[in-house]
Amino acid sequence: MSPQPRTGLGTNQEAVRRHNLGTLLRHVHRRGQSTRADLTRGMGLNRSTIAGLVTELESLCVVESTDTVGSPRGAGRPSVVVRLAPSGPYVVAVEVGVDRMVVARVGLGGVVHQRATAISSGTEAWQVGSTVASLVREVVDQAPSDAAMVGIGIAVPGLVRRSDGLVRLAPNLEWADVSFGSIVLAALGVEVPVSLANDADLGALAEHERGVAVGVGDLIYVSGNVGVGAGIITGGISLAGAGGYAGEIGHLQFKPGGRPCHCGNRGCWETEVGAHAIAQAISLPTDQVPRLDEVLAGYSRPTRELRAIGTMIGHGLASVINAVNPEMIVLGGYFSALHSLVRDEIEAGVSDRTLSSPFETVSLELPALGADSVLMGAAEMAFEPLFTDPVSALGSAIQDVRTRVAG
Amino acid sequence: MSPQPRTGLGTNQEAVRRHNLGTLLRHVHRRGQSTRADLTRGMGLNRSTIAGLVTELESLCVVESTDTVGSPRGAGRPSVVVRLAPSGPYVVAVEVGVDRMVVARVGLGGVVHQRATAISSGTEAWQVGSTVASLVREVVDQAPSDAAMVGIGIAVPGLVRRSDGLVRLAPNLEWADVSFGSIVLAALGVEVPVSLANDADLGALAEHERGVAVGVGDLIYVSGNVGVGAGIITGGISLAGAGGYAGEIGHLQFKPGGRPCHCGNRGCWETEVGAHAIAQAISLPTDQVPRLDEVLAGYSRPTRELRAIGTMIGHGLASVINAVNPEMIVLGGYFSALHSLVRDEIEAGVSDRTLSSPFETVSLELPALGADSVLMGAAEMAFEPLFTDPVSALGSAIQDVRTRVAG
Repeated sequence: MSPQPRTGLGTNQEAVRRHNLGTLLRHVHRRGQSTRADLTRGMGLNRSTIAGLVTELESLCVVESTDTVGSPRGAGRPSVVVRLAPSGPYVVAVEVGVDRMVVARVGLGGVVHQRATAISSGTEAWQVGSTVASLVREVVDQAPSDAAMVGIGIAVPGLVRRSDGLVRLAPNLEWADVSFGSIVLAALGVEVPVSLANDADLGALAEHERGVAVGVGDLIYVSGNVGVGAGIITGGISLAGAGGYAGEIGHLQFKPGGRPCHCGNRGCWETEVGAHAIAQAISLPTDQVPRLDEVLAGYSRPTRELRAIGTMIGHGLASVINAVNPEMIVLGGYFSALHSLVRDEIEAGVSDRTLSSPFETVSLELPALGADSVLMGAAEMAFEPLFTDPVSALGSAIQDVRTRVAG
Repeated sequence: MSPQPRTGLGTNQEAVRRHNLGTLLRHVHRRGQSTRADLTRGMGLNRSTIAGLVTELESLCVVESTDTVGSPRGAGRPSVVVRLAPSGPYVVAVEVGVDRMVVARVGLGGVVHQRATAISSGTEAWQVGSTVASLVREVVDQAPSDAAMVGIGIAVPGLVRRSDGLVRLAPNLEWADVSFGSIVLAALGVEVPVSLANDADLGALAEHERGVAVGVGDLIYVSGNVGVGAGIITGGISLAGAGGYAGEIGHLQFKPGGRPCHCGNRGCWETEVGAHAIAQAISLPTDQVPRLDEVLAGYSRPTRELRAIGTMIGHGLASVINAVNPEMIVLGGYFSALHSLVRDEIEAGVSDRTLSSPFETVSLELPALGADSVLMGAAEMAFEPLFTDPVSALGSAIQDVRTRVAG
């Protein structure tokens, strides 16, 4: 092997500049807009460097500067406002559920431009991929012709290998070792950066970035759907585990000898509190599970069976709190709807079974992004290359994707 | 509030120098000895800076340089060997068990100079503190009069608040909000830096620093004693949780309606696999539980009851692996002894209940430090200030502590 060429000074400066461009863009993405003075303070760079970075991001059509404004009290130097460009780059966020798919075209700042949903016609990967491709076409159809598509981010209810996005196992879809990103791209017939991750991990990411858990270092987003999973953030960092599979709390042993689970065992927590258990508790036929949200919304008072499920949600959460000591639990999926019906039972279940010290400081919260946490997390993931190196990300982005994915 | 004074250049240089001193010392502490050439490469500093740091550490009596040696092939410049000073600073490591106490005087490099153990006469904090103080006196009695005692590190089987070391809850000792560090210092009658942490967290630290898990980023040390707990390291960082209480896997719900647990619930995992359950399985009277290790060592073949406990250890570990996706599980406490008897049952229990993806890459290991993982972790914790700033740590260390803690 020949030795790697040494990185020269010019290249380092270029890397620093690209890093700064990405950091500035992430700053504006989080806040929607910033004054140049805020950016100067927030990034610790001088005014002329910030001005240069803003000019370059303007030339890339991702931000625009507007009229100078005075400081709030009318004193001091006026500062330029930096805003996200209205026809700036976007991503396509995909949430693959066991029974329904949601796809959205999302702009910087987390703005949902278009959205499309479908009930899946089957759970085979090619069927789901084909449905997703149709929805992607639908949401990009109205994109401005000059807006660049940065990539597609896909949330999957299963174990996704961090290194390459392979879906190792999605028990409730009966997928094993499915290269779902490739399947979607093949169905679309276009080459575009695609990234995949576990749905609950993305829910945690989104609630931490722009939801109820902004500034919370230790949080768990619990995705209570057909399966139950967790996205764990600890010390501000996503707990991935050795392969990216951490958070499978739906498969904590909960009731020995209990109901059979799709994972092959019996009595996993999700067999007692997942969507099928909830449906059974309210005598909803299995084929109506995709409608569970609206059915639950129709209840004004909980039944005894729903209260029992609330208690079991609380008991399972207690195990998780004992093991991980989070500051906040965010109840996503059907657990959000259940919380409004059986909040007391959930809280009593947690309080009965959690050790006193971790109990004292934990709070149960609903997602600030409502039903969109996972979807918005998929968008955040797809935007990530743009914040690492905007020049490269936009260089490999697809312009006028509309005509290229036309079905 | 008056503004903080700006840190001047001189102070920064001093801070950098102290940081480098500590880093160099940690390097030698981990490896036992290093050549100056290794230190130059490992720390990315030039030869003269390293030489200056070594000289300063020599003047602090923590290292010594010995004769120059040639490179292994006899070529190149000879390099000075830097070794830990034989009468260098030491710490006192304390392992508080539910039924026995171990105290050791530990030098740099993890060398145990003296060790003392006792069965506790009672579990009241003052009784345990008094026993610990006697053992501390015993181990420091033979310390060289010129060796500095850096501090005392104490491992506790309970929930320890990270911010101040308060023992919030040690269910099996029936302690709640016990300032055990102060109690030990009061019994000793000497002021010395004291730090406390959860036993399993310290076991994980020691096995990661100098045991079976060196270089392993995602590991769980499971402490299987009267209580069962875990020290979790993920991405190379200790998972503390919001208050420092993470890892209470003994209180995962395991068997609803099962045996009463000291935490107040029923059916926690530790009620099925902790020392009292093991003792009951082999009809060992409760008062003989402190002898469990030697009793288990007397078995050449497992009984049916021990095999059942092995299976339940495996099932509980499966829940933990599903939740955290570690690369390695280190079986500490009585689980080490059980592993040699019922390894097949433990492994089958794990294999039956763990999801395939996290199962593929996890290994079950015995602690390389044997029964000393927790004790060595307490020593590592007590040494930590020395690696952050050796000058300050030695400035507040106690010289000739023998005469000052004489009972």
